[in-house]
Amino acid sequence: MEKIGFIGTGVMGGGMVRNLLKAGYSVNIYNRTKAKAEPLIQEGAVWKDSVSALTKSSEVIITIVGYPQDVEAVYLGENGILANAKEGSVVIDMTTSSPLLAQKIYEEAKAKGIAALDAPVSGGDVGAKNGTLSIMVGGDEAAFQRVRPIFEAMGKNIVYQGKAGSGQHTKMANQIAIASNMLGVCEALAYGERAGLDMEKMLQSISTGAAGSFSLSNLGPRMLKGDFAPGFYVKHFIKDMTIALESAKQMGLLTPGLALAKERYEELAAMGEENSGTQALYKLYRA
Amino acid sequence: MEKIGFIGTGVMGGGMVRNLLKAGYSVNIYNRTKAKAEPLIQEGAVWKDSVSALTKSSEVIITIVGYPQDVEAVYLGENGILANAKEGSVVIDMTTSSPLLAQKIYEEAKAKGIAALDAPVSGGDVGAKNGTLSIMVGGDEAAFQRVRPIFEAMGKNIVYQGKAGSGQHTKMANQIAIASNMLGVCEALAYGERAGLDMEKMLQSISTGAAGSFSLSNLGPRMLKGDFAPGFYVKHFIKDMTIALESAKQMGLLTPGLALAKERYEELAAMGEENSGTQALYKLYRA
Repeated sequence: MEKIGFIGTGVMGGGMVRNLLKAGYSVNIYNRTKAKAEPLIQEGAVWKDSVSALTKSSEVIITIVGYPQDVEAVYLGENGILANAKEGSVVIDMTTSSPLLAQKIYEEAKAKGIAALDAPVSGGDVGAKNGTLSIMVGGDEAAFQRVRPIFEAMGKNIVYQGKAGSGQHTKMANQIAIASNMLGVCEALAYGERAGLDMEKMLQSISTGAAGSFSLSNLGPRMLKGDFAPGFYVKHFIKDMTIALESAKQMGLLTPGLALAKERYEELAAMGEENSGTQALYKLYRA
Repeated sequence: MEKIGFIGTGVMGGGMVRNLLKAGYSVNIYNRTKAKAEPLIQEGAVWKDSVSALTKSSEVIITIVGYPQDVEAVYLGENGILANAKEGSVVIDMTTSSPLLAQKIYEEAKAKGIAALDAPVSGGDVGAKNGTLSIMVGGDEAAFQRVRPIFEAMGKNIVYQGKAGSGQHTKMANQIAIASNMLGVCEALAYGERAGLDMEKMLQSISTGAAGSFSLSNLGPRMLKGDFAPGFYVKHFIKDMTIALESAKQMGLLTPGLALAKERYEELAAMGEENSGTQALYKLYRA
């Protein structure tokens, strides 16, 4: 079994590392804040003091960090992954990040005999914990096949999407579909509440037909209860929408629904809700 | 069994009348264009020459016509339903129409000892044909219980939503949820196509997770194939969004997603697509 190095042991990464350990992999870990990694060390992960130390002692390096600038720093920085990875190793970025950056990392890695995959996920912290993430993978297919067992330890719906950047592009399409739908879910529920409907009965009528969606069924009831605890953070969704909007613009595609959703979420964040869950958008609509 | 009068034997009404006949009801019918009713007459429905003649010979009168102004004319006009219905009869409007108009009809009917229900449907022509419509009902609960067997001959998900207008309000919420989601589905697919993704694989990744929806799974593949044949007409969706937007405004609710979707659909209709299916919105996004 390949020796794994894992960078970024937050809520998502923590669950993923646990599933790798459970599957029998030996896992080196590194995180900016060591305290967050302590429980994993107790459970058998091996702490490394730097990105370079981790990279030098691993064959497959996985990252799930915050923003595209963090991805760029950890891969392309002076003491970053590509400066330290062995020829023949595979590097996998599972952060939701820029498709163009994924292509850049792929090219620079390739020049050094390293295979780079972009493999963002969906399914949230629950999916990370239960090993049921959906994983969308871009890069060379041979590299994908080589590390497929590693993906299988962390996810269920694992799809090779094509050349470098395709994983990120697929995730962007996913977030674009969600963005406008969140407006629709909020507006439908707010309308029903203003009209004085019995909201449970209303959901019984509309959630299984043509208006049905994951967000309506899963986030709708939380909106109505006023439960705005984060499954997925407002601030992270804004990050994703920002990347998606830029990426669409670069391809000459106008996405007015996405633009409107991003604007509304920024309004929400400005109200101090950036650490709430995405369903907090409902706060903009409540009477 | 109550004697039914049915006004409006278009694509929806035709399927509904057939299911009433199958359930053993005797059904009087009337339609503006008699030719469209001919097949139903062959199958056992009894033609009546006017709204008043139909109303006088029926105990439960059902309407599914075009626009709110048609509903108003057929109920409140000089020779309309309320001028001719017997005391103790039930009138049911299944058109998607204005909640305020439904309340007005309810009040005027009540003054004459007639029970009025607003009971719009979702599920399209397929649901009408197969008797699997979702039916959302507003009005007095006693009247709802009395005609419930009639609804059960036409639909599956039959929910009493509350006082007069509640059926229409529920249908408005349904259309509001669909409206913004259609933007999201189109933008996600257009993004994927521009990015050169394998669209079948992309849908495999995104359609079962947080981005999943009825529209993505059912209309997405038609958009990609360029199949814009009507299941639900663009012009009827614009009608519904117009009613919803007015109704929201009357309640002091801002619905920017709905407003944007309506604008985009009007742009589409102006291109000559008003008789296409709602999935034709994708034409605005294709390269």
